[in-house]
Amino acid sequence: MTDPRLSELARLLPELKLSTDPGDLEHHGRDWTRRWTPAPLAITYPASIEEVQGIVRWANGVGVGVVPSGGRTGLSGGAVAAHGEIVVSLDRMNRVLDFDPIDRILTVQPGIALEAVHNVARERGLLYPVDFAARGSCQIGGNIATNAGGIRVIRYGNTRQWIAGLKVVTGTGELLDLNRGLVKNASGYDLRHLVIGSEGTLGIVVEASLNLTSPPPPSQVMLLAVPAMDSLMRVFAEARHRLTLSAFEFFTDRALHHVLAHGAQRPFEETHPFYVVTEFDAADEKAEAAALSFFELCLNEGWVVDGAISSSEAQAAALWRLREGITESLAPHKPYKNDVSVRISAVPAFMAEMQELLSAEYPHFDVVWFGHIGDGNLHINVLKPADLDNAVFVEQCEHVTSLLVDTLHRHGGSISAEHGIGLVKKPWLSSVRSEAEIALMRGIKAVWDPNGIMNPGKLL
Amino acid sequence: MTDPRLSELARLLPELKLSTDPGDLEHHGRDWTRRWTPAPLAITYPASIEEVQGIVRWANGVGVGVVPSGGRTGLSGGAVAAHGEIVVSLDRMNRVLDFDPIDRILTVQPGIALEAVHNVARERGLLYPVDFAARGSCQIGGNIATNAGGIRVIRYGNTRQWIAGLKVVTGTGELLDLNRGLVKNASGYDLRHLVIGSEGTLGIVVEASLNLTSPPPPSQVMLLAVPAMDSLMRVFAEARHRLTLSAFEFFTDRALHHVLAHGAQRPFEETHPFYVVTEFDAADEKAEAAALSFFELCLNEGWVVDGAISSSEAQAAALWRLREGITESLAPHKPYKNDVSVRISAVPAFMAEMQELLSAEYPHFDVVWFGHIGDGNLHINVLKPADLDNAVFVEQCEHVTSLLVDTLHRHGGSISAEHGIGLVKKPWLSSVRSEAEIALMRGIKAVWDPNGIMNPGKLL
Repeated sequence: MTDPRLSELARLLPELKLSTDPGDLEHHGRDWTRRWTPAPLAITYPASIEEVQGIVRWANGVGVGVVPSGGRTGLSGGAVAAHGEIVVSLDRMNRVLDFDPIDRILTVQPGIALEAVHNVARERGLLYPVDFAARGSCQIGGNIATNAGGIRVIRYGNTRQWIAGLKVVTGTGELLDLNRGLVKNASGYDLRHLVIGSEGTLGIVVEASLNLTSPPPPSQVMLLAVPAMDSLMRVFAEARHRLTLSAFEFFTDRALHHVLAHGAQRPFEETHPFYVVTEFDAADEKAEAAALSFFELCLNEGWVVDGAISSSEAQAAALWRLREGITESLAPHKPYKNDVSVRISAVPAFMAEMQELLSAEYPHFDVVWFGHIGDGNLHINVLKPADLDNAVFVEQCEHVTSLLVDTLHRHGGSISAEHGIGLVKKPWLSSVRSEAEIALMRGIKAVWDPNGIMNPGKLL
Repeated sequence: MTDPRLSELARLLPELKLSTDPGDLEHHGRDWTRRWTPAPLAITYPASIEEVQGIVRWANGVGVGVVPSGGRTGLSGGAVAAHGEIVVSLDRMNRVLDFDPIDRILTVQPGIALEAVHNVARERGLLYPVDFAARGSCQIGGNIATNAGGIRVIRYGNTRQWIAGLKVVTGTGELLDLNRGLVKNASGYDLRHLVIGSEGTLGIVVEASLNLTSPPPPSQVMLLAVPAMDSLMRVFAEARHRLTLSAFEFFTDRALHHVLAHGAQRPFEETHPFYVVTEFDAADEKAEAAALSFFELCLNEGWVVDGAISSSEAQAAALWRLREGITESLAPHKPYKNDVSVRISAVPAFMAEMQELLSAEYPHFDVVWFGHIGDGNLHINVLKPADLDNAVFVEQCEHVTSLLVDTLHRHGGSISAEHGIGLVKKPWLSSVRSEAEIALMRGIKAVWDPNGIMNPGKLL
């Protein structure tokens, strides 16, 4: 540790755990994107809010960028440190601090894994409803920084909706204690909501109070084989009308292909163009009958040609695996990811146009679609042919993204539904946000982080 | 209209409806507070977004403050114009612009009354769930500016939760089109949430897209007589556990006294210290039986000594009137209003301390309590004795507020739960928000409104 800046940091915070080990620099310098070469100055592992404040104050003094680092499961390069930044890993700040059964508020440190939050809530007879496949590794602080969505948004909304309070260290090292778990607090700008989704560019979340809720009644999972794209939204409309939905997800035959190759079990003998996985309340016979009559209607209308319904938790998990295993099954193919959203009503027209565009522009690539169709959120993964150079591949994909952006713009959509802007989507921020909005964001960033040290180069 | 600034405005916007009639100045220059003498420069009634932009640009040029004006049912002086400001009344921008049944989004102009939104939603078989007694006069733009709460927060949250998109004219006259109805949109700072609750100090809401939801099943309303303060939270805990609540409100015998004097019908023969009005789902016999067994439990435990349950809509309305009629019944007594909140778990200790404080400090005043106890939100109205000068009365009340603020601070509460800061609570903003938070708010305000013309003097 010969860098004089690091010696100064060690002098200021003698207890701070700090590493310049090349393995740590590599590991903590990147997220699930693999496009940038990690090159942080060092990795810090603060154990307290005071240490986080100390790091940020030091960084202001020496002019080093600060990259907050959670589970690094991000897909937009938001947690990449490629330019000599100091990484603030929240791995050691991963404890449950408090639970109040009357408030139904769980207070945690930011480095706790989402799945650990689920488990603690369950032990208390309650539910923290935000959920997605990376639950075992992603951290709640990162969930907040990206306003994480996932598979239950249709019922429970995004992370934003579950944050009762936040402690945040700003870009100047000030500690804010925002909202403090109040249900009602009309006392000026809700800075909590400004921090949620700010991708570490305003400050670092150092503590979070999460609202928990009652768990839903027992549920069932249904898998549906859908022969045509324009049936997807009809099935969704009927499902929403007739059932109490917790999830309504779709994927294509290409997605199924990869997830089966990765070890999942084939659900139907035949192959179909589209599949839906939906989960809904099935508390009693009446609810189960409603599910059956929904299925029969879809079958009679020709919107669905085959189906399976879970009758045990194991079966439910097997059906979910077909959807949740997709991201992992694609990872070896270095996918280029698009994560787009439109209003739900715009999904059919947008999907049709996008399919046309993609088949014209990607005739030789394997394009895999899936996503949260009931939220208007589609994931389009383009797989890299094994023999194609990565830089060339990304360049070709970005060309298509630029075309996609036009289509999105016409449909009032967003280039980032839930992954965030980070580094990956930055070139297209102006397709979603107007010049005036971006100017306001820059102005706000300058107020919170006057020296521009917080996650520099990301988002803005 | 001899003021040269107004002549200039009329020249710039020849179609703009504008009034300097003393009656209009008086009517549109104030809200439900009566402490300030209205003295606006003029009242404008724009009919379009372009006219709102034109007014704001003109105001920047001539250095006149802009006061956005909705239904003026506010209780914190947020819509008061007492210093030569231009008032922007949204009364003429009160139309429904669009409804999409797939998105379940209703797009409206800001001047539409909350009750009109309820009605339009109902006609579509859907629900806009934010609700409170001023529904007939308050406007959706004002609801957004104050993040209005009300009687259904326990189930549906505040206004914030229902805003899918906002068009806003900033302090420089720029038009922002925020979020555009997307369910998922992780593309930088969510400026929509910064505007919600900003009390007109950042800009003017000129269009809103509201999420609608499915109406709840049929409900029942129960009135409970509660003999002691410490039973209130026990009754609430049981109700939340056993029933699906839409509302859980309380009021005191003093509140009942005034509402009866105002024409409501006496519910029980005897008088009791506290009353609860609760509304809950009663879709079937099972749910009705749960309500009955909840009531019996409360009775057996001695938490409740009498009760009434609605068996018709008319009866439900009569029970609700006991709670909803309170504000109106107190109005002739020029109440000094406190609108405070604490975490739900802190309610019992806070209420006990507050009651002690108030009986020590207000021995001769009529103090009326009511509120949304399930949200931790209490309204404390101190009635002005008829023979006491108003200024002296307010001064005495503010002295007590300062004591109350200490108690609140110890319990982590807020001086404004849902009324906003406006002018009335401004002296105590620093009891809820830290110096660092207030500095950030000021910085953000300067970014949105560099000339400081938007609702000057309010909030900050």
